[in-house]
Amino acid sequence: MTTTQLHQQILEKKSFLCVGLDVDLEKIPPHLLKEEDPIFAFAKAIIDATHDLCVAYKPNTAFFEAYGVKGWVALEKIINYLNENYPNHFTIADAKRGDIGNTSTRYAKAFFEDLNFDSVTIAPYMGRDSVEPFLEFDGKYAILLALTSNRGAADFQMTESQQGNLLFEDVLRKTQDYKDSDRLMYVVGATKASSLTEVRKIVPDSFLLAPGVGAQGGSLKEVYKYGKNELVGLLINSSRGIIYASNGEDFAEKAREKAKELQEQMAELLG
Amino acid sequence: MTTTQLHQQILEKKSFLCVGLDVDLEKIPPHLLKEEDPIFAFAKAIIDATHDLCVAYKPNTAFFEAYGVKGWVALEKIINYLNENYPNHFTIADAKRGDIGNTSTRYAKAFFEDLNFDSVTIAPYMGRDSVEPFLEFDGKYAILLALTSNRGAADFQMTESQQGNLLFEDVLRKTQDYKDSDRLMYVVGATKASSLTEVRKIVPDSFLLAPGVGAQGGSLKEVYKYGKNELVGLLINSSRGIIYASNGEDFAEKAREKAKELQEQMAELLG
Repeated sequence: MTTTQLHQQILEKKSFLCVGLDVDLEKIPPHLLKEEDPIFAFAKAIIDATHDLCVAYKPNTAFFEAYGVKGWVALEKIINYLNENYPNHFTIADAKRGDIGNTSTRYAKAFFEDLNFDSVTIAPYMGRDSVEPFLEFDGKYAILLALTSNRGAADFQMTESQQGNLLFEDVLRKTQDYKDSDRLMYVVGATKASSLTEVRKIVPDSFLLAPGVGAQGGSLKEVYKYGKNELVGLLINSSRGIIYASNGEDFAEKAREKAKELQEQMAELLG
Repeated sequence: MTTTQLHQQILEKKSFLCVGLDVDLEKIPPHLLKEEDPIFAFAKAIIDATHDLCVAYKPNTAFFEAYGVKGWVALEKIINYLNENYPNHFTIADAKRGDIGNTSTRYAKAFFEDLNFDSVTIAPYMGRDSVEPFLEFDGKYAILLALTSNRGAADFQMTESQQGNLLFEDVLRKTQDYKDSDRLMYVVGATKASSLTEVRKIVPDSFLLAPGVGAQGGSLKEVYKYGKNELVGLLINSSRGIIYASNGEDFAEKAREKAKELQEQMAELLG
């Protein structure tokens, strides 16, 4: 999937919503636990109930790895279900991977070839040769952590260099020089909307994935105001706020309502 | 396993060698491919042939994820085999994980509880609340990337701050203030031996995991000279140099020879 196609989807659906699939067996409706594969059953119901309101789905791999082989099987089923039934959705493996060159190539193959995700989130700490192996795949994207939405982001990402740049700004700037950097997107937390002006000065054209709207307190309007570009260039992620709106029999319906609320706000912003 | 026990193992075996289990089906001896589970068969043979020469094993999760569910099953079999047969070996899941708080907790549970590794490597970029969930487990360790052995390490890890610290020094210093930081170890590449003096000024007591000896050109003698502390405090990792010493029927024997060479050098250094 290309960013042009993603932009097209955003315009058609009047939505730049990404639904985060952080499936936690302790939080899903108890009646699903008697299903053969409760993780998949839950994710499938959420997807079926929200697909027309969002343009992307983002399973966080941690929630699947926590269940070992069973979790990995469920993740495979989910990405296959998405690719078969909703091929126009942009899929993100939220894995935050990154390793030395030949090892990053392994991760890239795992997520792009074996699982056939459109994109994967990666961590920038190890630099160029840990990132570039993810950029070698046509129609696939690496979404690099730049400025995250958690409190700990201040520990290193906001460190100012001798040259007067914050570390996350250096990450944006330097990675733009990497080979095939047009296949890079960036994570910029919605809780840091005011920083988006600086971000856009450095990466005017890149798509940004913004977690933190809703549960973490970020404002959709602010993110749109400071973060949008000519292709809209934003994916706003919401996970818990949507998928755990109810843990009763009506969970999918309630998830749809929450997704619909966000989609309607987005439609208004898109005009 | 505690660091005191690890130190004891180092003295008994006269070795601070860690064998990296980066199992690549394209590199293992072709005759193993007819085994039911070639990944496990290869790793088991390497472990059986080297266990008395090393104190730690480090499977890199990328190599297992690349094979999907099959790979994950093999990883489970390997860690179970180690825990059942060689419980005195320190086990490292080289996963380089890290995410926001509640998600890091998932990863920690996956590697410490579900898989029962002694330690897991993690990336520092997201700061305190991405690291501390890994430090809540008694007898378990988080091995934080500080100064890695790859070329891209220069991109961000060597960035100098306004205060005159390199980023990796800030990572060492700040994380020492995290809760239960006595459960932290650090990755410091063997290719950067000269930096170990600075590293030891900041973290005199922590164990360091040093990849890069052998295939990547680091010197064992230098790492020992600048990196050792009172508990030795070093784990030197070698992966490809040992496990792919031969791809014939004699692969395990040749792997043992390579491990033995390193162990003998270590015995000499330990005196």
